[in-house]
Amino acid sequence: MNAGKELQLNGLLLIEQIQALGQLGADAENGGRTRIALTDAEKAGRDQVVDWMRDLDLDVQVDRIGNIFGTLRSPNDPGDQRPLMMGSHIDTVTNAGALDGCYGVLAGLAVIRAFRDAGVLPQRSITVAAFTNEEGVRYQPDMMGSLVHAGGMPLEEALDSIGTDGTRLGDELERIGYAGPLEPGAIAPHEYIELHIEQGPILEAEGKSIGVVENLQGISWQQVEIKGNANHAGTTPTRLRHDAGFVASAIVTALRAIAVETGSTLATVGCMKLEPNVINVIPRKATLTVDLRDPDEAKLVNAENRLSQYLGEIAEREGVSITTERLVRFQPVNFDASLADEIEASAQRLGLSSRRMTSGAGHDAQMIARIAPAAMIFVPSRGGISHNPREHTDDDQLIQGARVLLDVVSRRLGAS
Amino acid sequence: MNAGKELQLNGLLLIEQIQALGQLGADAENGGRTRIALTDAEKAGRDQVVDWMRDLDLDVQVDRIGNIFGTLRSPNDPGDQRPLMMGSHIDTVTNAGALDGCYGVLAGLAVIRAFRDAGVLPQRSITVAAFTNEEGVRYQPDMMGSLVHAGGMPLEEALDSIGTDGTRLGDELERIGYAGPLEPGAIAPHEYIELHIEQGPILEAEGKSIGVVENLQGISWQQVEIKGNANHAGTTPTRLRHDAGFVASAIVTALRAIAVETGSTLATVGCMKLEPNVINVIPRKATLTVDLRDPDEAKLVNAENRLSQYLGEIAEREGVSITTERLVRFQPVNFDASLADEIEASAQRLGLSSRRMTSGAGHDAQMIARIAPAAMIFVPSRGGISHNPREHTDDDQLIQGARVLLDVVSRRLGAS
Repeated sequence: MNAGKELQLNGLLLIEQIQALGQLGADAENGGRTRIALTDAEKAGRDQVVDWMRDLDLDVQVDRIGNIFGTLRSPNDPGDQRPLMMGSHIDTVTNAGALDGCYGVLAGLAVIRAFRDAGVLPQRSITVAAFTNEEGVRYQPDMMGSLVHAGGMPLEEALDSIGTDGTRLGDELERIGYAGPLEPGAIAPHEYIELHIEQGPILEAEGKSIGVVENLQGISWQQVEIKGNANHAGTTPTRLRHDAGFVASAIVTALRAIAVETGSTLATVGCMKLEPNVINVIPRKATLTVDLRDPDEAKLVNAENRLSQYLGEIAEREGVSITTERLVRFQPVNFDASLADEIEASAQRLGLSSRRMTSGAGHDAQMIARIAPAAMIFVPSRGGISHNPREHTDDDQLIQGARVLLDVVSRRLGAS
Repeated sequence: MNAGKELQLNGLLLIEQIQALGQLGADAENGGRTRIALTDAEKAGRDQVVDWMRDLDLDVQVDRIGNIFGTLRSPNDPGDQRPLMMGSHIDTVTNAGALDGCYGVLAGLAVIRAFRDAGVLPQRSITVAAFTNEEGVRYQPDMMGSLVHAGGMPLEEALDSIGTDGTRLGDELERIGYAGPLEPGAIAPHEYIELHIEQGPILEAEGKSIGVVENLQGISWQQVEIKGNANHAGTTPTRLRHDAGFVASAIVTALRAIAVETGSTLATVGCMKLEPNVINVIPRKATLTVDLRDPDEAKLVNAENRLSQYLGEIAEREGVSITTERLVRFQPVNFDASLADEIEASAQRLGLSSRRMTSGAGHDAQMIARIAPAAMIFVPSRGGISHNPREHTDDDQLIQGARVLLDVVSRRLGAS
C-alpha cells in the first residue's frame, strides 16, 4: 500500500449505520425488525444503503435481480477490471436482529470510507454488494441474488418465483424500483470477502474474537413422511401397532446417534407433525424434516445413506411405509486457502485471537465461491442466537471484525 | 325361566334399527355421522330411541342430566325394585361409525323385544339406559351421564360444564327438551350389562366371536412440556444443544421400551407439537401427551414412576426443563366375576368362541360398576377401527352378541 496516510476504520460510524439501518422495519413491540426481501420496509433499507454509497461517491449499479453494487473505482481500472468484492445482504427474516447480513454490507462501506478518509485510491477497484433475498422467507430459494449472480439460476426463473403471499418476485422488484438494467454476473469479482456474525456459539464459547472460515458445510434437507395405522390407544396391543409417531421419534433418536458417532455431522429435526394428533389415537401419519450438515461431502453422503438404511429397517420392523422428499441439497464449499491465510495473518497482526472454523449456515459467499476465490470472516454471536431480536455482538467485536476486513482488503490490494 | 314360549332375538330388526339410527346426523360426503351430545342431531337420535322404547310400551324416564331409561316392568316390581340394566350411549364423536354405543342401547331394546314377542314378563324389571355425553367431545369429562348417575360428579357441576363452543350443558339440555325431572341415580341397577364393539383388534386377530370383559384398564393421561433452547441447526454443535424436540422423541422411544418390557402396559403418544417448528431451528419447546393404560393399578403406577424417573434423567442430561400436567387418571375397574362367568357360559351354550379380555377403552360400565355389579360383552371390530366411518362389525357378529346378551339376561332373571 502506497500509504501517505494510514487507513483508519471509523468504528463509531459503522455502529451508527448498523443501528440506523436496524430502525427500518422495526417492530415497536419486541425490539426486532422485519425487512423481508422486496417489501416496502426492505425498499427503505435499500434506499438508505444506496444513499450511503452515494455519500461515499461510489458508482452505484443495480442488476436485473436487484443486487446492488457500489464501486470505488481504481485509477488503474479501464472500466472492466474485476473488483475486489465485499458484501452480504440487507433483507431479514421476520422479527430479526440488526446484524445478520447488514454487518457485512455496512462494514464493506466502512472499509471504503477508510480509503476515502485517507484520500487513498486502491490499485484495484473495490465493490460492496448487497445481494437480493438471501433469507428466502417470501421467495425460494434463499441466497437467490448471489446464486443468480454466480450463474447458478436462470434470471427469468428467479423473476418468476411466486412468493408465499402469491406475488411474483419480478413484479415486486419493479414495484419497489429495484429492477435494474445490469445483467447479473456483469460485475465479476476478482476475490470476494464476506464479514458476518457467526450465528453459532463456538467463538463465544472458546473466547475467540475472529473466525477464519475455511469452508461451509454441505446441507441436506429432506422431508420424511411415515404412514402407519390409526388405532385406539387403549385397545391395540403394542405388537399390533403401526405407530407413525413412534417411528418418527425413533428416527429422531437414530439421527442423534449418527451425529454423536460421526462427530462432524449435524442432524436436526426442526419440524414434526402427527395426524390425527389426538391423545388416545395412535398416529396414522407423521411428517418430519431432517436437516443434515457436514463440511465433508463424503461424510454427508454417509449420513444420508445411514439414515436411508435406518428408514428401510424401521419401516419393515414397524409395518409402516416411509417416503422421503429431497428439499435442499448443497455440497460443502471450500473457501480460498490463501484468503483464509490472509485473514488469519491479519487477526494476528491486530492482536486478535482467532480460530479456523466451518460455517454451519448458508451465506452468499458460498454462491460467489463458484465464480471467484472467496472467504468469510466471523465475529462472535452471543449465545449463538440469530434470526431473533436477541441476536447480539458487542460493538467492540463488530469493530474488530471490520478492522480485520480492512486489513485484509488493504494488504490484498495495496492502494495508489 | 318359565318359558311357555322361547325367547327369540329379532336380529333383522336390530340391524335395521342400527342402520336407521346411523342415518341421523349422517355426513353425506364420507359415510360417517356426527351426533355430538346435546346437538340437534343427537336430539333426533334421542327422539328416535324414545319412540322405539314407546313402541315396546316401556316406562320411559329422563333424569336431570338427560340420561334416558326405558323400563319393562316386572309384575313382581312394587315400583322400587332394582332393575337389571342394559345400556350404553347414542352420542358420537365427529364423523363416527354407526355402532359405538348405539349397538349396546339397541341390543338392549332387542332383548326386551324378545320378551314382548314371546309374551313373557321378567321376574325382575329390565331397564335400557342411554347415558348422556359418553364421548366427551363438546363437554368434559367423557362418560359424564353415567358418572353423574353413579354419584361420581355433582349434578350442578355437570350442568354448568362449558362446551368447546362456549355453550353451557344445562342450557343445551333444556334447549333440546331432555332436562328430565328424575333425580340422577334414582334408578339404581341390580346388575348392569353393556354390550359393545371391541374397538380393538384382538377378537378379530384371534378369530373369536365374543369377548368376556373381565376388567377395564386404568388410564393415566399426562401432558409433558419440554423447554430447551432454540438455536441454528447449522451452527450449534451437538454437545451444546438443548433440543426440546430430541428430548420429546427420546421420551416416546423410552415409553415404547416400558410398554415392551412390562408386556401389559400400553403407552401412546398421540399428540406432539414442536416450536418454532422450523426446519433449520433446533426446537426450543416440545409438547406431547402420554396415554398410559394397564389393567393392574400397581403396574400403572410403576409405569408412571418409570416415566417420571426418565424425565428427570433426560432433563439433566440434555439441559432442558420438563414439566408435566395430569389430565386424566382412572384406576382400573374389575367387573363382576359371576356376570363374567355367566357371559362365558352363554357364549359356550350358543356355540360361540370366546376369550376373557380387558377393555382398553373407557365405557359407561366402568362408572356403573361403582354402584352395582357390572360386566361387558364385546364383539369383534374389523381392523380394530373405531371413531371412524370405517368402523365395522359383520351383521352376524352383531346378532351373535345380542343373542349372548339375551341369554345372559334371561338366565340372570328368569321370567314370569
